[in-house]
Amino acid sequence: MNKVKVGIINVTGYAGVELARLLSQHPAVELASVTGRSLAGQLLGEAFPQLSGINLTIEAKLGQVELAFSAMPHQESAKEVITLLDRGVRVIDISADFRLKDASAYLSWYGVSHPRPELLSHAVYGLPELHRTDIGSATLVANPGCYPTGAILALAPAVKSGIIAPEVIIDSKSGVSGAGRSLSLKTHFPEANENVTAYALDGHRHLPEIVQELSQLAPGSPPQVSFVPHLIPMTRGILTTAYAPLAPGKISVDREGQQALLKLYRDFYRDEPFVRVIEEPPHTKHAWGSNYCFICPTIDIRTGRLITVSAIDNLVKGAAGQAIQNMNLMLGIEETSGLGAPAVYP
Amino acid sequence: MNKVKVGIINVTGYAGVELARLLSQHPAVELASVTGRSLAGQLLGEAFPQLSGINLTIEAKLGQVELAFSAMPHQESAKEVITLLDRGVRVIDISADFRLKDASAYLSWYGVSHPRPELLSHAVYGLPELHRTDIGSATLVANPGCYPTGAILALAPAVKSGIIAPEVIIDSKSGVSGAGRSLSLKTHFPEANENVTAYALDGHRHLPEIVQELSQLAPGSPPQVSFVPHLIPMTRGILTTAYAPLAPGKISVDREGQQALLKLYRDFYRDEPFVRVIEEPPHTKHAWGSNYCFICPTIDIRTGRLITVSAIDNLVKGAAGQAIQNMNLMLGIEETSGLGAPAVYP
Amino acid sequence: MNKVKVGIINVTGYAGVELARLLSQHPAVELASVTGRSLAGQLLGEAFPQLSGINLTIEAKLGQVELAFSAMPHQESAKEVITLLDRGVRVIDISADFRLKDASAYLSWYGVSHPRPELLSHAVYGLPELHRTDIGSATLVANPGCYPTGAILALAPAVKSGIIAPEVIIDSKSGVSGAGRSLSLKTHFPEANENVTAYALDGHRHLPEIVQELSQLAPGSPPQVSFVPHLIPMTRGILTTAYAPLAPGKISVDREGQQALLKLYRDFYRDEPFVRVIEEPPHTKHAWGSNYCFICPTIDIRTGRLITVSAIDNLVKGAAGQAIQNMNLMLGIEETSGLGAPAVYP
Amino acid sequence: MNKVKVGIINVTGYAGVELARLLSQHPAVELASVTGRSLAGQLLGEAFPQLSGINLTIEAKLGQVELAFSAMPHQESAKEVITLLDRGVRVIDISADFRLKDASAYLSWYGVSHPRPELLSHAVYGLPELHRTDIGSATLVANPGCYPTGAILALAPAVKSGIIAPEVIIDSKSGVSGAGRSLSLKTHFPEANENVTAYALDGHRHLPEIVQELSQLAPGSPPQVSFVPHLIPMTRGILTTAYAPLAPGKISVDREGQQALLKLYRDFYRDEPFVRVIEEPPHTKHAWGSNYCFICPTIDIRTGRLITVSAIDNLVKGAAGQAIQNMNLMLGIEETSGLGAPAVYP
Repeated sequence: MNKVKVGIINVTGYAGVELARLLSQHPAVELASVTGRSLAGQLLGEAFPQLSGINLTIEAKLGQVELAFSAMPHQESAKEVITLLDRGVRVIDISADFRLKDASAYLSWYGVSHPRPELLSHAVYGLPELHRTDIGSATLVANPGCYPTGAILALAPAVKSGIIAPEVIIDSKSGVSGAGRSLSLKTHFPEANENVTAYALDGHRHLPEIVQELSQLAPGSPPQVSFVPHLIPMTRGILTTAYAPLAPGKISVDREGQQALLKLYRDFYRDEPFVRVIEEPPHTKHAWGSNYCFICPTIDIRTGRLITVSAIDNLVKGAAGQAIQNMNLMLGIEETSGLGAPAVYP
Repeated sequence: MNKVKVGIINVTGYAGVELARLLSQHPAVELASVTGRSLAGQLLGEAFPQLSGINLTIEAKLGQVELAFSAMPHQESAKEVITLLDRGVRVIDISADFRLKDASAYLSWYGVSHPRPELLSHAVYGLPELHRTDIGSATLVANPGCYPTGAILALAPAVKSGIIAPEVIIDSKSGVSGAGRSLSLKTHFPEANENVTAYALDGHRHLPEIVQELSQLAPGSPPQVSFVPHLIPMTRGILTTAYAPLAPGKISVDREGQQALLKLYRDFYRDEPFVRVIEEPPHTKHAWGSNYCFICPTIDIRTGRLITVSAIDNLVKGAAGQAIQNMNLMLGIEETSGLGAPAVYP
Repeated sequence: MNKVKVGIINVTGYAGVELARLLSQHPAVELASVTGRSLAGQLLGEAFPQLSGINLTIEAKLGQVELAFSAMPHQESAKEVITLLDRGVRVIDISADFRLKDASAYLSWYGVSHPRPELLSHAVYGLPELHRTDIGSATLVANPGCYPTGAILALAPAVKSGIIAPEVIIDSKSGVSGAGRSLSLKTHFPEANENVTAYALDGHRHLPEIVQELSQLAPGSPPQVSFVPHLIPMTRGILTTAYAPLAPGKISVDREGQQALLKLYRDFYRDEPFVRVIEEPPHTKHAWGSNYCFICPTIDIRTGRLITVSAIDNLVKGAAGQAIQNMNLMLGIEETSGLGAPAVYP
Repeated sequence: MNKVKVGIINVTGYAGVELARLLSQHPAVELASVTGRSLAGQLLGEAFPQLSGINLTIEAKLGQVELAFSAMPHQESAKEVITLLDRGVRVIDISADFRLKDASAYLSWYGVSHPRPELLSHAVYGLPELHRTDIGSATLVANPGCYPTGAILALAPAVKSGIIAPEVIIDSKSGVSGAGRSLSLKTHFPEANENVTAYALDGHRHLPEIVQELSQLAPGSPPQVSFVPHLIPMTRGILTTAYAPLAPGKISVDREGQQALLKLYRDFYRDEPFVRVIEEPPHTKHAWGSNYCFICPTIDIRTGRLITVSAIDNLVKGAAGQAIQNMNLMLGIEETSGLGAPAVYP
């Protein structure tokens, strides 16, 4: 069997190195080339001793591949993506550059004009649970943000079925790896350890992504979302707790309604290989190192609200794992290929 | 100066040992007696080496004191409190036994009938920011729960001023010491570390406390509260993020409204020695080991909602420190006495 | 290809559940039966949501298998092992019951007489780097302790080559999962977090194992070992720092000697698939979730001492992974089968 | 009572901010001026919200004070110290610039010539347990390093009494705050969390300090020290485990010897307010946030070695607290003044 050659642009960030880890175990593709500016010339296993089984040198420019992952920061990623597409390479972009359909939203949230707005409509938002078919035939997949992945999956069945009113509150708790490998005071160990804080109270860049996707599910009644992310003293994981009033008359506010809600979610995700709807509140630990998303939907009977909680690993389902899931769909191979490993526990 | 003799019932839990730490530094009282069932007969400094400067033996029964703290679990605490009151000792009860004014609520949330319901109206809810005067003359103070302290302080100015509608969401993140010193799988290090989870989705016992106190502030429009607590991999601290729609026409939904909101909070807490209203989201680390509560109120301009975030140390302002603040008020000494130490950072 | 049926006795501890995780991904064996006293009757995926992809019910008695892992505590494990051997099942015992060759040492360290001392000479100490051939043909393999694995691998080349004197100091730092899933105050999150402590200063049960194996490598000059384990606030990983005086005249005490030492270690482990000799001090994170052992040997030129540092994951190379490596050898399949995954980083 | 005015140079590092915390609670001195380059002009409470009770602006140059603490990095600190001494201000230098008596050792370990070698003999090494009298009359005190504090206190009684041979191994485990507030990859949360590593295997700068002080205690038989520091995933605390062969015939290698050893240590530290000799291995948590040092000396009866373990808070007894202890001695006030608070637990 001929393996498909794939490459990673910017292997040295956390999403890049996680891609390398997962791809090195993938049965149907060959990690053929990796780039990284500051470490170009080093063996991958020198920079990251745990990857010394992968015999690759970090390059300045990507070698010949059929499909590439770009794990560059936004803005810089767009440039790489455009070059790759022009070379005929299919691309999965881990950055935010092609997630928003609306170029003016990109300008307003990222502070720069989009370099190729006409590509935005071609790019497919890479959440397989919502866009599986389009992903399969895409040349450019915009891999979702980590927060949007957890938030959209937690809410999609409720939004699509119309059982909730638009007043949606999303409160997310993320491990520190979500802030990346670049140094900052807030991710300095003595500052982040034994500490929790909310941030981006005036608007996080993942908000428009969440709103875009949820609005597509309920075009007539787009959700009005407040989203507050929190930094938690752990390395990996995002727990999202979402709240919304139940729409009147759609579902009963009692234990029977809770069972109906559970069924609604289970039906929605029935054929999804990586979503597990459960009856107890999930632990981010259930997903640690794996591509699974655990969701517990429930009704707050006292107030008639939906409360739904999801747990993912921000670097797997929230980044590298989902990118590989998208790659599998694009290559027409088994969707779960290379992604079956359960969470590492404890 | 004659120091007032005080005692601690059940010094061996986290609230008890924190009381001992703080009282050992207090200039106006003498920690004269401490009890603890399983460790009775041991020196306090044997059981807790960091307290070997306190020369006290853990006793089975409390010695002669003027004022006592009960740090027993609920139900058991009520018995101790009743005995102490009958002996003429003023009491600050750290447990939940005298917090709810409504005996039927106690029955419904704690599963047992209250042993002395007639005391419930005599007990004062020990949140000095709301009940300072009553605390001063009380014989029995019910020290607030850790979650309610953070939640009520985060919301009180908004509720009292009527600027928010009743649809209140409270999402709290607590360090593991909040679960106490008793062993359980969820507080076993390998399970709690690198993990976040929501719990008590069907109703936490601190909810009725929160509702009781907020409702007193807005009798005509009692808040409809959803409250979800989360367990965070750190030892101390509670961060509470609270959300509510702004009531129409009360405050402008723009930057000016944000300044007005800040002023509203600063005016409300102007004379409070332990509440600090700040413009940046607080870190639980700002409060670590101290009796301070940091609050950041803001308006989500996109949605017209109040988002307010508070940070406390669950064992200090959320338990032992607040109990000492109450003691100071009861004894007519300086309210900040023994409580001035800033947070230990980092 | 017919998969070999294997089973796990006591799947509910950390070694057991880690075996299940790894075996569920193994290409050549089928996890056919798992037992666990307290949880018998539950689906494995109910007890451990991350394992819901494994369709097995936890049983009270082990079903039909060709090879079994016993992850019972010592003493209880011996009984299970004896029963299994009598049934003709090959066994890998994760407990300490068959590690010591000397029944009187077992009595003195474990406080009970060994139930079948005649089996001790049949059992093979399952460290493939020292006993690969014997493991292949064994019916009973005694899987090494977590500390001995890291300590023996750190020292074996030096001891065998005779370059060090017998005065060996081993200082090990272990994550809390090494203490197991049973609850205790020292593993209660608020006690273990932000804390380091030494323990077992008067002798840890892993000491005789270390001495036994190192002595076999240097029969004429058995090492005199001091071993102090430490509990570290992390879930997984053991870092071992070992110290010994260099024997006079065997290796030069300078940079050339350091290169010779490195070569000695690299030659010793040349064909080992899971040992990596490196020039920088290893991080336990390099091994996290993987079966690899990283070793950095060096000479303290000022004092003429060997200092060698090893890093493993205590639950993989220190328990379940090494057990599967042994299984692979016993079954005559590729030694690395099912164990190739690199560490999960960060 | 007139309070003595004191100042802090470079308040913005961890040692500086810890000095501010402790001095703000000190009954006999007034924190009158603080400097910090990057944050000059800000209120201390803006930069560090937990210190908003201290009404001071961070300055570019130190104001008028009687005594100053320099918390600058080495080399830069020397310049500040020299200027202050020339102005007649007594100085406690937290940096390493005046700790080594030997200017050539300074050159060899720090890579630069000492700017005022003649001051080295005037400076007093500020470990009160060894140099109390000299500290009292000093104009310049060199505050010990964090590792040396724990290591010297753990070994001093044994070295001075001659009960051990010179072959000393010191294995230290430090929390990440010991690496300071400057950013680096090794202190980035996702790298430091769930990780342990040894570092500086070829020699840490604290080694010559340890050797200098221990050698003064045993001039005829200076110890030959190997010292390996380790980075531990916690914020504060250093645990030091030290090993040395017992000198023949000085102390019996049995339980009686253990009691004699305990008595030797207790006698040595009998009048020390901040050293506690205990019989169980100490936890760094016992010292968390406090100026106490806990020491457990024991004999490894199997091998005839001393094993002694000490625990301190690296930022208190290992830096700011010890500096204040030195200040108290220099000012002739109660040595424990402002330092009596026990550890914050848990």
